[in-house]
Amino acid sequence: MAAQHSIDLNADLGESFGSWSMGQDSAMLGQVSSANIACGFHAGDPQALRTTLQAAAEAGVTVGAHPAYRDLAGFGRRFVDASAEELTADVLYQLSALDGLAAAASTRVRYIKPHGALYHACHSHPGHALAVVDALSAFAEATGRVLPLLLAPGALAHQIAAERGIPTPQEIFADRAYRPDGTLVSRREPGAVVTHIPAVAETIQRYAEEGTIIAEDGTSLQIQADSICLHGDTPSAGAMAEAVRAALTGAGVSIESFA
Amino acid sequence: MAAQHSIDLNADLGESFGSWSMGQDSAMLGQVSSANIACGFHAGDPQALRTTLQAAAEAGVTVGAHPAYRDLAGFGRRFVDASAEELTADVLYQLSALDGLAAAASTRVRYIKPHGALYHACHSHPGHALAVVDALSAFAEATGRVLPLLLAPGALAHQIAAERGIPTPQEIFADRAYRPDGTLVSRREPGAVVTHIPAVAETIQRYAEEGTIIAEDGTSLQIQADSICLHGDTPSAGAMAEAVRAALTGAGVSIESFA
Amino acid sequence: MAAQHSIDLNADLGESFGSWSMGQDSAMLGQVSSANIACGFHAGDPQALRTTLQAAAEAGVTVGAHPAYRDLAGFGRRFVDASAEELTADVLYQLSALDGLAAAASTRVRYIKPHGALYHACHSHPGHALAVVDALSAFAEATGRVLPLLLAPGALAHQIAAERGIPTPQEIFADRAYRPDGTLVSRREPGAVVTHIPAVAETIQRYAEEGTIIAEDGTSLQIQADSICLHGDTPSAGAMAEAVRAALTGAGVSIESFA
Amino acid sequence: MAAQHSIDLNADLGESFGSWSMGQDSAMLGQVSSANIACGFHAGDPQALRTTLQAAAEAGVTVGAHPAYRDLAGFGRRFVDASAEELTADVLYQLSALDGLAAAASTRVRYIKPHGALYHACHSHPGHALAVVDALSAFAEATGRVLPLLLAPGALAHQIAAERGIPTPQEIFADRAYRPDGTLVSRREPGAVVTHIPAVAETIQRYAEEGTIIAEDGTSLQIQADSICLHGDTPSAGAMAEAVRAALTGAGVSIESFA
Repeated sequence: MAAQHSIDLNADLGESFGSWSMGQDSAMLGQVSSANIACGFHAGDPQALRTTLQAAAEAGVTVGAHPAYRDLAGFGRRFVDASAEELTADVLYQLSALDGLAAAASTRVRYIKPHGALYHACHSHPGHALAVVDALSAFAEATGRVLPLLLAPGALAHQIAAERGIPTPQEIFADRAYRPDGTLVSRREPGAVVTHIPAVAETIQRYAEEGTIIAEDGTSLQIQADSICLHGDTPSAGAMAEAVRAALTGAGVSIESFA
Repeated sequence: MAAQHSIDLNADLGESFGSWSMGQDSAMLGQVSSANIACGFHAGDPQALRTTLQAAAEAGVTVGAHPAYRDLAGFGRRFVDASAEELTADVLYQLSALDGLAAAASTRVRYIKPHGALYHACHSHPGHALAVVDALSAFAEATGRVLPLLLAPGALAHQIAAERGIPTPQEIFADRAYRPDGTLVSRREPGAVVTHIPAVAETIQRYAEEGTIIAEDGTSLQIQADSICLHGDTPSAGAMAEAVRAALTGAGVSIESFA
Repeated sequence: MAAQHSIDLNADLGESFGSWSMGQDSAMLGQVSSANIACGFHAGDPQALRTTLQAAAEAGVTVGAHPAYRDLAGFGRRFVDASAEELTADVLYQLSALDGLAAAASTRVRYIKPHGALYHACHSHPGHALAVVDALSAFAEATGRVLPLLLAPGALAHQIAAERGIPTPQEIFADRAYRPDGTLVSRREPGAVVTHIPAVAETIQRYAEEGTIIAEDGTSLQIQADSICLHGDTPSAGAMAEAVRAALTGAGVSIESFA
Repeated sequence: MAAQHSIDLNADLGESFGSWSMGQDSAMLGQVSSANIACGFHAGDPQALRTTLQAAAEAGVTVGAHPAYRDLAGFGRRFVDASAEELTADVLYQLSALDGLAAAASTRVRYIKPHGALYHACHSHPGHALAVVDALSAFAEATGRVLPLLLAPGALAHQIAAERGIPTPQEIFADRAYRPDGTLVSRREPGAVVTHIPAVAETIQRYAEEGTIIAEDGTSLQIQADSICLHGDTPSAGAMAEAVRAALTGAGVSIESFA
C-alpha cells in the first residue's frame, strides 16, 4: 500500500545562457511535474527563460523560481558572503523577473527552490536562510501570493518559514546516498551519487510503498517527502526519470506537483 | 496664459551599482513628479533599487522603468546589436524585476522610458523600436496594465505603440538645444547642453506660456510635451530643477505626473 | 602542383565558461596548427583558458588571441558601439591576460584573430578596425613583439596594419559559400554553410592545387590564403577537419602555422 | 632617531568602472609611493586602468596589482568560495592583464596586494592563501619576475610565500585601531577607524621614531612595517595623507616604495 497518494517530481531547467546550452529541458518537461527555473543570476538569459516558461506552460508543468547568488562564472555553486539586505533584494529581483516572464507565458511562479550554494545556505546559514524567507515574505505582502519554499528535510529556512505560515515542502533525491542522520553523503565521498538505474528504482519503490529510505549503513529512515528531485544534466537523465516514474506508478502513487 | 494646465518633471534615478554611487537621488525626489528607475542592466543593484523605490513611494513620486541594453561597463550608452527576440525578453525581464521590487515598496511601475542607447534606438531603429513595444504588449497582456512609453516627439516606437493603443507621452529637455526640425543638437556639437540656469528658466517659461521652444537658429517650434526631462547627475542639478519648477509655477502650470 | 607549399589550419578554442562547455577542444587540437583562444570577454574563464593553453602547448599548436566585445550574454556576436579608446584598452587587456596565462603554460600568444562581431568590424568599421590595430601597436611597443592580425581578404584593419608593418595573414573558410566579389554569402541565405564533407574536401583540394575558390555563381576566385578556418562546434567538425587535412596532404601541401 | 630610514605609502587606485567614479586618483598619486591598481574583477575597466597606469608612471609611483574575487556587484568585499584552481587562474589572469596595460604605459607591475575579501582570505583561509601564492609562483616561473606580496603582519600567505623565496613586505594602517594581539579592530566595532587627523599623525610619528604602535588597550606593539596603507576614498583623504607624510618627514623617515 502506498505511503502517500501522490508526490511531485522536480528538476532544474532554463540553465542555458546565451550561446551556451545546458540540460535537456524538453525531455525533462515530459517527466517532471515541477520545474525549478533559473532566474538569470547563475544561469538563464531572458530569451531562454521565456522559451522554457512557454514550454513548461504547454506541458502543464508547474513553475518554480530557482534563484541563486549573483555568480555566472561559478554557476551559483560558490558561497558568496552577501549581506542579508542585498541577498533579500537579489532574491526578490530574480523572483519578480521570472514571475513577470512567466505571466507573459501564461503561467506563474508557484514556489521557490534556491539553487546551488544558496540552497545549501538555506539549510545551514542563519543569515542567508532568513534573507531568503524575508524575500518570500516581501513577495507575499506585495502580491498576496504565499509561495512554498522547497528544501530538504531539516532546513533552517524551513523553521523560519513555518513560523510565518509559509508552506515548507520537502524533497528527497532519487540518486543520492543518505547518511543515517538523514543528510546526504557528500559528493566528495565515493558512492554519493547512485548511477545504477535499477538501484534508484528500488529506492523509489521502497519509498513509495513504505515511506522509508535506507541510509548507506542500512538504517531505515522515515522521511515525509513532497517531491523527488531529478537531475537533468546527465546522459542517463531520461532513462532514470522514466524508471522513477514507473516505480511510483507501480506502487500506486500518482505524480502531481505540490504547488 | 499657460499653454497647458500641468506638466510632468522626470529624471533618472537608481543608477548606483554596488559600491559605486551616481546622482543625487534624494535631492531629485524632492523636485520631480516622475522617476525613471534603472532596472539592473546598465545600473541599479537590487538593494539600491529597493531603497530608491521606497524613497520614491514615500515622496509620492510616480515610478517608471528605465530599462537598457545589458551593458554595465558602458552604462547602457552603447548601441548593442541584439536580436529583436532577445531585446524584447531583456526589456520584459527588467520591467518585471523592477515592478516586483516596486510592489514590495508599496508602489508600482506606471510607465517606461528606455535608457541611453536604447532610448535613441526607440526613435530611429525599427527592429529595436518594435522589440521594446512588443515587451510592453506582452506586459499588458500578462498583467492587464498598459504602460505609457515616454519618448521624445517623433519616435518610431511611438508610431508602433499608438497603433496598439499604448499611450505615447512626449518629453522635452530643459537643458538641451534644439535643431529647427525639432531634434536635439548632438552632444558632440558646441552649445548642445545649456548650463546657464536663467537661460533654461526662460526656455521653460516660454514653453509654459506659449507652448513653443526656440531652436538654435531662432525657429519657433510648436511642441506638445507631457513631461520635461531633468538631469540629476550635474553639480547644478538641484538649482536647475528649482529654476524649472519656479518658471512653471510662475506661468500657472502645475507639476504632475502624466502616468 | 600545389599553389603553395604549406598552409595553416585554425579554429576557435577555449570558448567554455564556468559550468558551460562549448566545442571539442581536445579533438580540434589534433587537427589544427593554430588555435584562436578566447580571452574572457565573450567566453573563456581563466581556469578553462589555462587548461586549453596547456593542451595547445603540449599538442604543439600555435596560440592566437581571440578577443571580443565585452558581451558574455551575446557571445561576442553582437556589435557593441564602443568608443575607440575603450575598445583599444579592452583588446589590450584581453591580449595581455591571455599572453600571461600562455606564458604560464610554456607558450605565448603569437597572433591575434578578433572574434565574432569584432571580427566583422575589423573588415568594415573604420573606427573599430583602427582601434584593434592600435591595440596591436601598443602591444608591440610594450613588448617588442609584432603580432600578425588574421582576417579575411580585403579587411579594413589589414590596410591599417600593413601601413604599420604588422603582418596581415589572410584566411579562407572551408565550409562557407563565396560571392563573386570574394566575400562570404551571409549566413541568413540558403547555402551559406556547406555541410557536405566531400564538397568541402573538393573545395580545399582545388584551392590547394590551383589557388582558386569557385564562388556560388561559378566565378573562379584567385585568393592568397595563409590559413583555412575550421569550425569546432558542429557534430561533424572532426570528420570535416580530417577531410580538409587529407585534401591538403593529397595535394602536397603541408599544414603549418603562419605565425 | 628613526626606527628605519624609509617606508612606503600605498593606496588603492583605479577603482572606477565605466561611468562610475571612485576615489581621488590624481590627488593620491601626489602622496603615495605605491599604487595598488584594480585589475577588472572588482573594479577597473581597461580604459580607466590605462589612464591610471599612465598617471602613475608619470608621477613616478610604483605600480602594484590589486586583484580580487570576480564580484563587481560586491566590489570584491564579499568572500567567494572559489576552488583553489579557479582562484589561482583568476589571479594570474588579472595580474597578466594589468601588467600588459602597465607595459603599454611604460611601467610594470612590481608587487601584488590582494583586494578586499581576498586580502582577508590571504591572512586566514589556507586554500585561498595558497592559491594566491601559486599565482605568484606561476607568474615568476613564466616571466622570471618574483613579485613581492604585500599583506598585514602574520598573514598565512606570507608563510607560504616566504618558503618559496617570495618577498613578504608588511603594511600597517594609518587610520585603524589595533588589538593587543596586533590584529585590526573590526570595522563593526566603535573606534575601529580613526578620523581625527592629529591622532593619526601622532600614531605615525611614534611608529617612525620608535617602531611601535599603541593598541586600543594601551599595549605597545613592536611592528616591522615596509608600508603604510592610506585610504583614498574619504573626503579627508588628502589632508590625512599630508599629515602622515609630514609626520614621517619630521621623524627623518623618507618615503620610498619597497618594490
